[in-house]
Amino acid sequence: MGAIQKSDSREQAVERMITLLEQASQQDCTLVVYPELALTTFFPRWYMEDQAEVDTWFEQQMPGPATQPLFDRAKALKIAISFGFAELTPDGQHFNTSIMTDREANIVGRYRKTHLPGHSEFDTERDFQHLEKRYFLPGDTGFPVTRTMGGIFGMCICNDRRWPETYRVMGLQGVEMICLGYNTPSVNSQRRNEGPADRLFHNRLVMQSGAYQNSTWVVGIAKAGVEDGFPLIGGSLIVDPNGKIAVEAQSEEDELIVHACDLDDCTFGKKTIFDFARHRRTEHYGLIVEQTGVVEPAL
Amino acid sequence: MGAIQKSDSREQAVERMITLLEQASQQDCTLVVYPELALTTFFPRWYMEDQAEVDTWFEQQMPGPATQPLFDRAKALKIAISFGFAELTPDGQHFNTSIMTDREANIVGRYRKTHLPGHSEFDTERDFQHLEKRYFLPGDTGFPVTRTMGGIFGMCICNDRRWPETYRVMGLQGVEMICLGYNTPSVNSQRRNEGPADRLFHNRLVMQSGAYQNSTWVVGIAKAGVEDGFPLIGGSLIVDPNGKIAVEAQSEEDELIVHACDLDDCTFGKKTIFDFARHRRTEHYGLIVEQTGVVEPAL
Repeated sequence: MGAIQKSDSREQAVERMITLLEQASQQDCTLVVYPELALTTFFPRWYMEDQAEVDTWFEQQMPGPATQPLFDRAKALKIAISFGFAELTPDGQHFNTSIMTDREANIVGRYRKTHLPGHSEFDTERDFQHLEKRYFLPGDTGFPVTRTMGGIFGMCICNDRRWPETYRVMGLQGVEMICLGYNTPSVNSQRRNEGPADRLFHNRLVMQSGAYQNSTWVVGIAKAGVEDGFPLIGGSLIVDPNGKIAVEAQSEEDELIVHACDLDDCTFGKKTIFDFARHRRTEHYGLIVEQTGVVEPAL
Repeated sequence: MGAIQKSDSREQAVERMITLLEQASQQDCTLVVYPELALTTFFPRWYMEDQAEVDTWFEQQMPGPATQPLFDRAKALKIAISFGFAELTPDGQHFNTSIMTDREANIVGRYRKTHLPGHSEFDTERDFQHLEKRYFLPGDTGFPVTRTMGGIFGMCICNDRRWPETYRVMGLQGVEMICLGYNTPSVNSQRRNEGPADRLFHNRLVMQSGAYQNSTWVVGIAKAGVEDGFPLIGGSLIVDPNGKIAVEAQSEEDELIVHACDLDDCTFGKKTIFDFARHRRTEHYGLIVEQTGVVEPAL
């Protein structure tokens, strides 16, 4: 998806999503994946102190009034969908969330972003703000997978894709397709000379390795283009279970990329080089869960 | 390093290693990394039933008579070295091992390969054998790191590089350079159409992602060329902590690749996007250690 400006309404975003859905239907797609925070601009770039203002960016119902038309159209076209949005729960918790539906528009998976990047207070050192740690709680779902449409599906969101734990926890549940959306600024806010080429390189690197190392499809979908002066990389792609890019977006506008993903392509890797049961040695992985940060050896 | 034939002696291999060491000295290198099983051919491709014959491929001392000249020359040139060999311990255990020395030729690190690929019995389904699970025990060292030469160094071996747990366990100890050797057949023994181009692609992918995701240098060194009719990929490379390839071997012969690796380049990634203490969520990683193989969700 291309940019969504701060002044754009949810209804406008949903209209664009439905247009893409119609295009997908014409190409016989059975699943359409949209970006992280697909209904609004990437609002964590804006510093807000008023919680009531913050809450205007969140959804209290899914589907809600603005999104019901998307669910209705998806159901009519028998296309499963996955997209991200800011979720405010009935008990007042804020999450960066994605859902997945089946082809009847029933929500069959819900994921809340685990690895929140950025910071929680205004940071004068950065070229621009990235306040996900201010507006969201770390997800409480872990990385569940869902059986639907004859396969095993998982989700993650944006920065989660840089963490190999994300893919591995789903790989250990036999995941065959990971759907993820992202909003990634085209320049590193803490390192000006890290521009779009580097950002796209890392984008591909982490999704390709995650796919290969767990022998799973990875569908990574950008919100791209310039939102109120702030550029986001595109580079939406579908990676096969061998780590190869099957198809990649060419534009930073609304653009449908399509691939016929055979979930059986996951089998070879899962049964040979990445047959976890035969090859993993969990007795040596303890630090991964015992320790959050780095502990260097004594001097 | 280029191929080592089955009939080649350890003394011949060591002579070639010393030649590379002399070249390294002329370029002011302070560390030279050699491949896995650097002293012999990649013998796990040969099926052997006689344990006495198997044991002829193993070292019972390090340094031993054949390798002492390498240690002596490294000490004289003040070059730290790391290389792999088959280790037979005094109590009769067999490991696929690497050591690292400081610049005085003192062994300061010892690592025993964790992720043994292949199989333990003769496999008629494969185009050729890969009997590491027959000849070696899984390593008992885990992934220790060593402070030496002003930095934090770790090791892994060959197939270990495909497993993100390898890098992460060292990353959690602040590793700044991972030295690894490999012997990777140019064709997948279980999938004939996976040839050298794919094998080199995966080789780069896993080392680049491991480097980036832990903000560490990775030095990956092949034994390459055709050993008794069996081709091995080359592609030795040095990857920087941003995941970029700094230098890559061009040949499948003995070839020195050189790069001035600034360990301080690890700092930016470790303090920002991969600041583990701020971003990791170990409460959701449990499956990585609780579960060895895949457990699919109920049907």
